[in-house]
Amino acid sequence: MTHKPIIAVTLGDPTGVGPEITIESIACSDITESVRLIVLGSPEVLRRAAKFVNREMAINCIDSVDDVASIPFSTKNSICCLPTGPDNWDDLQPTVMAKGGEAAYQCLVRGTELALAKRVDAIVTCPLHKVALHLAGHDWPGHTELLAELCGVHDHAMMLYLPPQPNGRLGPLGLGVVHVTLHMALRDVFEHITVENIQEKIGLAHHVFDRIGKATGNPYNVRIAVAALNPHCGEQGRFGREEIEIIQPAVELAKQNGMPVVGPLAVDSLMHKAAAGEYDAVVAMYHDQGHIALKLLDMFDAVNITLGLPIVRTSVAHGTAHDIAWSKQRASTSSIQYTGMIRAIQIAASLSQGPR
Amino acid sequence: MTHKPIIAVTLGDPTGVGPEITIESIACSDITESVRLIVLGSPEVLRRAAKFVNREMAINCIDSVDDVASIPFSTKNSICCLPTGPDNWDDLQPTVMAKGGEAAYQCLVRGTELALAKRVDAIVTCPLHKVALHLAGHDWPGHTELLAELCGVHDHAMMLYLPPQPNGRLGPLGLGVVHVTLHMALRDVFEHITVENIQEKIGLAHHVFDRIGKATGNPYNVRIAVAALNPHCGEQGRFGREEIEIIQPAVELAKQNGMPVVGPLAVDSLMHKAAAGEYDAVVAMYHDQGHIALKLLDMFDAVNITLGLPIVRTSVAHGTAHDIAWSKQRASTSSIQYTGMIRAIQIAASLSQGPR
Repeated sequence: MTHKPIIAVTLGDPTGVGPEITIESIACSDITESVRLIVLGSPEVLRRAAKFVNREMAINCIDSVDDVASIPFSTKNSICCLPTGPDNWDDLQPTVMAKGGEAAYQCLVRGTELALAKRVDAIVTCPLHKVALHLAGHDWPGHTELLAELCGVHDHAMMLYLPPQPNGRLGPLGLGVVHVTLHMALRDVFEHITVENIQEKIGLAHHVFDRIGKATGNPYNVRIAVAALNPHCGEQGRFGREEIEIIQPAVELAKQNGMPVVGPLAVDSLMHKAAAGEYDAVVAMYHDQGHIALKLLDMFDAVNITLGLPIVRTSVAHGTAHDIAWSKQRASTSSIQYTGMIRAIQIAASLSQGPR
Repeated sequence: MTHKPIIAVTLGDPTGVGPEITIESIACSDITESVRLIVLGSPEVLRRAAKFVNREMAINCIDSVDDVASIPFSTKNSICCLPTGPDNWDDLQPTVMAKGGEAAYQCLVRGTELALAKRVDAIVTCPLHKVALHLAGHDWPGHTELLAELCGVHDHAMMLYLPPQPNGRLGPLGLGVVHVTLHMALRDVFEHITVENIQEKIGLAHHVFDRIGKATGNPYNVRIAVAALNPHCGEQGRFGREEIEIIQPAVELAKQNGMPVVGPLAVDSLMHKAAAGEYDAVVAMYHDQGHIALKLLDMFDAVNITLGLPIVRTSVAHGTAHDIAWSKQRASTSSIQYTGMIRAIQIAASLSQGPR
């Protein structure tokens, strides 16, 4: 890497596990040697989190990222913080509250602005809670939709991504699941399953895996599979007609446009095959179709990548986890959780190299 | 075991992998030492399958199972066959055809009759193909629904079951996923998600795990979790209201009736926790919710158990697999496939002991 990318970590909802995993990912890895890292959020929360996980960690606040040469970027025992959002957290509790939603909103907006202005090369976001966001008056179903709006983008998608595994499971580029629909009631999914939407998601999957492949330095032929919506792939129309009328035509059109894609395939056996390395990317029709599989494969190492944005954005794949945030129980399980954060930073760094 | 149960294996659709896995499960294990096994299907197909997998296997045909003392039950190198369905298979091809559906139908009907008449203690069914069944004029969405009709039962459910794992993953009784809805378009699921249906499935899950627990000889407190229908468990009503209006009330009523149940829980993290041994049974709202998880955990060792029938019925969890049935490729992968059949027979034997 000739150029160390500047990565902005947005602290998300301070009431969740974001602050803890941010501190731990920095303290327990060499990630700050390969990226120039700043954290957007409350320095007070960072101090509390460092104390909570028993890390000696200096918090160096900066006013802006305009003069890169003067920024004291984070190291293993110091965090470079650009203060964002409310900073008095005497009332911090691991629970849903409007203030947590407001804090998450403000650091995300700031991070996105910095990335759009090319002041930072990528943003890595800690979890927010959608109900807290709503309580704070920001009515977005999630990070992904809010980011798309902030970036003025229509065609976007959430991809859950697992990097290649040391045990040789998955393919050489890992496994990504791109969602055609995301944060909505299952009932509302049907109207969004359109030929256009599916083709668009195939294109986004192809684009990101092309970049992931190039980042490895090896030319590679990406293999994409599209999931069916109905059980047994609709059983030739007996369990629903979306496969015949929408998904199959979308796959055929994508093929005509040169996409290396197959489908629709019954999702239960498709996920089994994808996990065995038969495909690099799966296009899933709805949230749980993709999330059940990826979280079962690896709950805490999965990385969320937003596709279709003019900026690079990754995130851990889990939520605020209020059940274990800021609690003693957390300490014992920390090792399995901050690894996802490290991966999210690594992948953001990798994707921020070269052309988008 | 003081009494060796009599198990009828129905050969299912001869064009699929059923005949091969039947031969292999008998030839490659000691299963016939612990059960008295007969096969319902075409002796001609059994002969072909034995030849195909290179097993010396005598096929001994019987006329009925009335006189148990005179039946030459299957051994490691002989199969006791009660001929059922069409027997001329010169046209056998690994493809969907009406004749395969008819054969599957006839052996299932015969097996169910024998079980209802208590001539056999359990049936273990090989895969059928729903389109072939339909082509043969039997319009059932699958085995489960046909069995319920043959047994005159309304309250029933399909459970996918993984036995306890040698690596200590899963709970001490394994993991079962019971489906509230099964073979239908995703669009049609909503009208079947009712308080009554969910309560019924919780009861069936509890009943079967109580039996599985008793079969182990150890008293055990079953732990059941109910999945949400919508992503993020509906996010407090923002992504659908079924959790608030239907699933939560059903769980509360079940608790009042003494069921050891929690839920609704977001299905992606629930499946992750269940796989780690936190729950014994998961009540899933629709086919793919349960199937993605169980097939990812173990595609070929999962066993399908029909709950709520007056007879014991198990099955492998995969389908006819026409892509690998009767093909050379099959031979190399056989070891991972017939193990599910052995498990299905073992579990049928175990469940057929003691009170239903």
